[in-house]
Amino acid sequence: MKKVIIHIMPKQGVLDPQGKAIQTSLSALGFSEVEDIQTGKLVELFVEDAENIDERVGEMCDKLLANPVMEDYHFAVEEVAYT
Amino acid sequence: MKKVIIHIMPKQGVLDPQGKAIQTSLSALGFSEVEDIQTGKLVELFVEDAENIDERVGEMCDKLLANPVMEDYHFAVEEVAYT
Repeated sequence: MKKVIIHIMPKQGVLDPQGKAIQTSLSALGFSEVEDIQTGKLVELFVEDAENIDERVGEMCDKLLANPVMEDYHFAVEEVAYT
Repeated sequence: MKKVIIHIMPKQGVLDPQGKAIQTSLSALGFSEVEDIQTGKLVELFVEDAENIDERVGEMCDKLLANPVMEDYHFAVEEVAYT
């Protein structure tokens, strides 16, 4: 069993209103040391051992998980015991 | 300048309807090797060098970023050049 951790973030230059809202709120709470925030999505897949896992996960991201126009993604694959 | 990468995931046992919807869609697209999916939020903070960064980021998560009733979080701090 493999665990694939996918990070999906807006591309550089794409507006991130949620990030701006969080930054304003953090500043109001006294956390003024935060200079910038970007928010994104995190997807964890548990996949049966299969060949070409990197290629297959790339296809999943391109076809469904990420919007290639506005978002970048990267992922890491790790081995896990089945739970 | 430090970059803090925060992973926020639903706690074990909390329903994740978005994850279930993604799994159904992936299966319909032919990616039947995916056994389980969890979705979460990814927040990247760019923070001025400050003392107690771990403690401060923990406070930010507890007060604003995560819902401690339903979500777990963990984070990693890395050094970055200012861009």
